Amino acid sequence: MIYLDFAAATPVDERVFKAMEPYFLSDFFNPSAPYLPAKRVKEAYEEAKNELAHAIGAKGADLVMTAGATESINLAMSVASGKILYLTTEHAAVRESARRFGLSFEEIAVDKTGLIDLSDLRAKLSGDVAMISVSAANNELGTIQPLSAIAEIVREEKQKRLARGDKTPLYLHSDASQAMSLIDINVRRLGVDLLTINSAKVYGPKGVGALYIAHGVDVKPLVFGGGQERGLRSGTENVPGVIGFAKAAVIAKEHINGNRKKYEKLGAILREELKKCAIEPVFLGNKKHSLTNFCTVSFPGIDAERLIYKLESREIYISTGAACAASKGEKSHVLTAIGLSDTEIAGSIRVTMGVLNDEEQIRTAAREIVEAVNEEAERTGLVGGQK
Amino acid sequence: MIYLDFAAATPVDERVFKAMEPYFLSDFFNPSAPYLPAKRVKEAYEEAKNELAHAIGAKGADLVMTAGATESINLAMSVASGKILYLTTEHAAVRESARRFGLSFEEIAVDKTGLIDLSDLRAKLSGDVAMISVSAANNELGTIQPLSAIAEIVREEKQKRLARGDKTPLYLHSDASQAMSLIDINVRRLGVDLLTINSAKVYGPKGVGALYIAHGVDVKPLVFGGGQERGLRSGTENVPGVIGFAKAAVIAKEHINGNRKKYEKLGAILREELKKCAIEPVFLGNKKHSLTNFCTVSFPGIDAERLIYKLESREIYISTGAACAASKGEKSHVLTAIGLSDTEIAGSIRVTMGVLNDEEQIRTAAREIVEAVNEEAERTGLVGGQK
Repeated sequence: MIYLDFAAATPVDERVFKAMEPYFLSDFFNPSAPYLPAKRVKEAYEEAKNELAHAIGAKGADLVMTAGATESINLAMSVASGKILYLTTEHAAVRESARRFGLSFEEIAVDKTGLIDLSDLRAKLSGDVAMISVSAANNELGTIQPLSAIAEIVREEKQKRLARGDKTPLYLHSDASQAMSLIDINVRRLGVDLLTINSAKVYGPKGVGALYIAHGVDVKPLVFGGGQERGLRSGTENVPGVIGFAKAAVIAKEHINGNRKKYEKLGAILREELKKCAIEPVFLGNKKHSLTNFCTVSFPGIDAERLIYKLESREIYISTGAACAASKGEKSHVLTAIGLSDTEIAGSIRVTMGVLNDEEQIRTAAREIVEAVNEEAERTGLVGGQK
Repeated sequence: MIYLDFAAATPVDERVFKAMEPYFLSDFFNPSAPYLPAKRVKEAYEEAKNELAHAIGAKGADLVMTAGATESINLAMSVASGKILYLTTEHAAVRESARRFGLSFEEIAVDKTGLIDLSDLRAKLSGDVAMISVSAANNELGTIQPLSAIAEIVREEKQKRLARGDKTPLYLHSDASQAMSLIDINVRRLGVDLLTINSAKVYGPKGVGALYIAHGVDVKPLVFGGGQERGLRSGTENVPGVIGFAKAAVIAKEHINGNRKKYEKLGAILREELKKCAIEPVFLGNKKHSLTNFCTVSFPGIDAERLIYKLESREIYISTGAACAASKGEKSHVLTAIGLSDTEIAGSIRVTMGVLNDEEQIRTAAREIVEAVNEEAERTGLVGGQK
């Protein structure tokens, strides 16, 4: 098996699994219970939150633990008391929740590499905007957004509002689910008010996420009950899940540089090999500002779904885009947003590398992709009988 | 260690842990991804939902998987388009979410054993009531509610509404978190429209729950995104968690009769032994309609918190009531509702048995409780120098 869909799901790291194990079996106590072993569980839980928070330059008390990125994003959007602006290439969780929680919404354009159009942001940043949501890195292209520059624009707008006595709050949220294991995320340096992180994308367990909330940001709970997480997210704490997420985040942080370089090298090999296709590949995303483990590429004229099934039979697993959208057979809104033609979109695959991959795997995968593309190109008459 | 707080948390069953393990480490794929191993994960996930649903007499498609009972309850309450009635002894998740999601709310009284006052329900069941929420069994007393009788009252009210052309929907929700491992829960027999179940209370993992939704009940999502769980609860599926919950539910179902008898016997021993205290114990709850693993008892005049700390030093772990409420030092609303005096409430402990307990443990625990109660009684001058 050569798995190349780490943007869709990651295996739980063995060390993460080991860290979680006792909290399933022996240290299973309710963190709110009054006796010593339960208090120790509570301490371990809080300590894990601290470690996780430190990994993004925050404190444990700044985090609300959730059941994943989708819940975190919804919780973030609930803050908005006005219009929500979001990048047109955002994940469905941002687009759908912005539409529900915002008084109104508008999409910010991207350029053809998926990078935010800052002039479009400036133009749309009217006085009634309460929230801007821009992912740290896009989940189909890997394009990394200039969050600090966006934060600067937000600061300027805040100052203008202050100067004219306008008290409409304005917050910047970023979904860092995809980015966390590959770029150094620091909430202060990025200047975000809210940040979503997701265990399942960084070799931690599924069903666990967190929302970083800067001081003074007034989050409205989505669920009500026992008052856990400072009343912002009731429900018995998912102790093993949070312990696992923290461990995964610490490991990810330690290996960010090594991983970035590893994927840079593997990505270069992959791209070089894919150029051997009978059809010229169109590499998507931003060359300079991209997660190095992403290689999204279009073979115009090819049916990417057929390609994926062909590769599946050779135990190579890649995807056409976000798993949740792909499963519904929807045309990628991300690839539409960057201006691809229907033919280019239909021929697009997303290769995302991870810890299981090495050079040999990438070379094998590249060879198989080339072969499959060429077979398809011949079958459909895109190219002649010979390469 | 003698752990006697299974109502607060249960260890994950070894078989459950084994069932989850591969879905963390090797079968980690995103269930929405297009290749075969991911489709197999999707199948395993759906199969687990089916098994879980069968354990409560439902079908997999009737369940929405959540992050736990609190989320399930909130999702259920979101259905209400009018007044919500709930039992005064309900868990904070019901009380708080009913207050947020209901247009108004009212509490239904209980008798001194914690049993619902059906005449009070009838009196309060006005035409604007949209939802009634009554737990299958109370989490502090173990009192089992007559859900079928309540469902019958709901049916009568629905017919009355139908007869007068009133289309106000009326739904019955039950929180079966505590009950599931000890009584046979069957949604059809109970006649509920919505039912909450919770993995963490039945030897499954924390952070996983489900809401059963009868056909035709219009649930409004709390979070929006990728459209998983038929759009009712977006977010990548917590595959290992759901696989674990299903396994735990199947095991629980198999052992319901054996467990009920085991705890009946152990409970009888415990109560008999506790009568040896210098202070006469007041056994709370309903003798006939109670989860057999519950023994909630008051020693009037004793400070239960001191008792718990004394027992903790002997590695016996019990609680004063719901962990989340107890941790905030709040006076139990359940014990208040059944008409206990402040002195009786302050002297109340909750012993809840589980799979780890055997007769020897119960005898040891009983002896230690008696000793601790007697010491406290002497210290505070409640009884003379000699027992």
